[in-house]
Amino acid sequence: MIIDCHGHYTTAPKELQAFRDKQIAGTDDPGPLNITDDQIRETIEKGQLKMQQDRGSDLTIFSPRAAGMGHHIGTAKTSEIWTNHCNDLIRRVVKIFPKNFIGVAQLPQTPGVPPANCIPELEKCVKEGFIGCNLNPDPSGGKWTDPPMTDKKWWYPFYEKMVELDVPAMVHVSMSCNPNFHTTGAHYINGDTTAFMQFIMSDIFKDFPTLKFIIPHGGGAVPYHWGRYRGLAQDQKRPPFSELVLKNVFFDTCVYHQPGIDLLTKVIPTDNILFASEMIGAVRGIDPETGHHFDDTKRYIDKAPISDADKKKIFEGNVKKVFPRFEASYAKNNK
Amino acid sequence: MIIDCHGHYTTAPKELQAFRDKQIAGTDDPGPLNITDDQIRETIEKGQLKMQQDRGSDLTIFSPRAAGMGHHIGTAKTSEIWTNHCNDLIRRVVKIFPKNFIGVAQLPQTPGVPPANCIPELEKCVKEGFIGCNLNPDPSGGKWTDPPMTDKKWWYPFYEKMVELDVPAMVHVSMSCNPNFHTTGAHYINGDTTAFMQFIMSDIFKDFPTLKFIIPHGGGAVPYHWGRYRGLAQDQKRPPFSELVLKNVFFDTCVYHQPGIDLLTKVIPTDNILFASEMIGAVRGIDPETGHHFDDTKRYIDKAPISDADKKKIFEGNVKKVFPRFEASYAKNNK
Repeated sequence: MIIDCHGHYTTAPKELQAFRDKQIAGTDDPGPLNITDDQIRETIEKGQLKMQQDRGSDLTIFSPRAAGMGHHIGTAKTSEIWTNHCNDLIRRVVKIFPKNFIGVAQLPQTPGVPPANCIPELEKCVKEGFIGCNLNPDPSGGKWTDPPMTDKKWWYPFYEKMVELDVPAMVHVSMSCNPNFHTTGAHYINGDTTAFMQFIMSDIFKDFPTLKFIIPHGGGAVPYHWGRYRGLAQDQKRPPFSELVLKNVFFDTCVYHQPGIDLLTKVIPTDNILFASEMIGAVRGIDPETGHHFDDTKRYIDKAPISDADKKKIFEGNVKKVFPRFEASYAKNNK
Repeated sequence: MIIDCHGHYTTAPKELQAFRDKQIAGTDDPGPLNITDDQIRETIEKGQLKMQQDRGSDLTIFSPRAAGMGHHIGTAKTSEIWTNHCNDLIRRVVKIFPKNFIGVAQLPQTPGVPPANCIPELEKCVKEGFIGCNLNPDPSGGKWTDPPMTDKKWWYPFYEKMVELDVPAMVHVSMSCNPNFHTTGAHYINGDTTAFMQFIMSDIFKDFPTLKFIIPHGGGAVPYHWGRYRGLAQDQKRPPFSELVLKNVFFDTCVYHQPGIDLLTKVIPTDNILFASEMIGAVRGIDPETGHHFDDTKRYIDKAPISDADKKKIFEGNVKKVFPRFEASYAKNNK
């Protein structure tokens, strides 16, 4: 089984954006969102499901569009209503295509509001079969005004709930509203790099030994600068990474060229790498150097100079370990 | 000749920080700064010069401590007085050790003040033999409140002067005052990544065909995600990188492990790579995996699977091309 741990519903029916546009215009609750099962079926069959089949993956861990989370828009109430609708669509995708998708929840974060306010939504989603969540380290959208992810008062109550429910979070920023940061080219990658650095300078995983984070986009800049990070931690007398982060932090394979994947699989222990493509996502074109889609990351893993056993871990085994609810939820969705 | 294009005076005599502390406490001009030539000689001989000799490089392109620029502290006047002193120390280091150091200027940037206010300092320094400058894309220190580097009204007048004087800039942020961003582990790398993405989405190099930037720290996350950046640019119908940025943007080799340097030299054209170590800088320890200093980057280049001709370009030729004033200034300093 080949599991893509990072896919978003970027092809949702246009009614969703129309609803959101009304929220952006100032209406917290623009009323019911009418999207039919047929619409969902069509957008998935022509989109993510077709790509799974074309590229040879079996299942996508699926969440609402990351850039669309837009936690900085409106109030906590706006965010709650928006998140309910976005997660409901994921629930319906999983219900229609239980063999091909399993849910990860968006959270109703809001800048200036402690993430503990997301606990009810997380509990509801997990009860419905979701197996993780996307956690935004910067709900302000590029202003970085809230405390770091290692701040005990701000974040720990939410982590307690994650640990209790046994769900990991993918650390994923949303749209940038800061003109300095291109959303998918700078803000996403910076968010990944920033979170890793916060983690290695803190005792967060001493406090929560079973808390798990996936850092997407191949871990931002981290694997490329693995020597820098090992050196910075060592200079600060931090424990070795095996003890400090490697039981808790995992990198996905959303790196869109062969040399990047080769570096990732060379420097990061295999147990810490999860297959992902983020299709249909940030980069949609075909690489003229290969003739294949940039984000067809399965091809890079297939070609990486690692053993078949390691590839199987990356494609399947590690995902099942990092998402402890995967097996039971998948079985229940398909019974 | 082996030229390290990225070194800072991180070992300056303690009087410099004492002066700065008075500025931070609120005194714009704490009076004269008394540092003797003997003090300068001692800090350099025991520090950067010793490391050049130990590691086998010949000359460092030298500038004030990057984290110390602290453009967010005080007013434009504070920044001007501070910058004068910092650059004066570099001028004196170069005068004492003209074979081993050549100057790059700090700029008196201030958040909310257009960078054109730095033109007099740049002109003065270039007249004194400096061959480039460090340009901070975020003078706010991690709040990113000023316009992107591609904003015509804000930045272009300064670029006109750079082009007129024929000096490149290293894009280098300073200390982070945002608790989300570790200075050397997140803010530096994010600044690099952010600037590159700004460049490829703009026509800045159509407007200034001879303008040159060095992106330090191996280009932030960029080479690791080279496929992502090529793909994002292609999706936006931008020209190929050869035309869009590769005549204008260069990456240094401050990547502190062999796999990172191997990736850099594999994906980035040799003509766009400049040797650098940033010693004595962010990472000071010895890598237990190699027994050598993490930031002894010459070893990684020596071992990289590229030709000797390519190594010579990285160690010397490219630096002389990117810093057009290098040869004349070096000759004048040593006559």
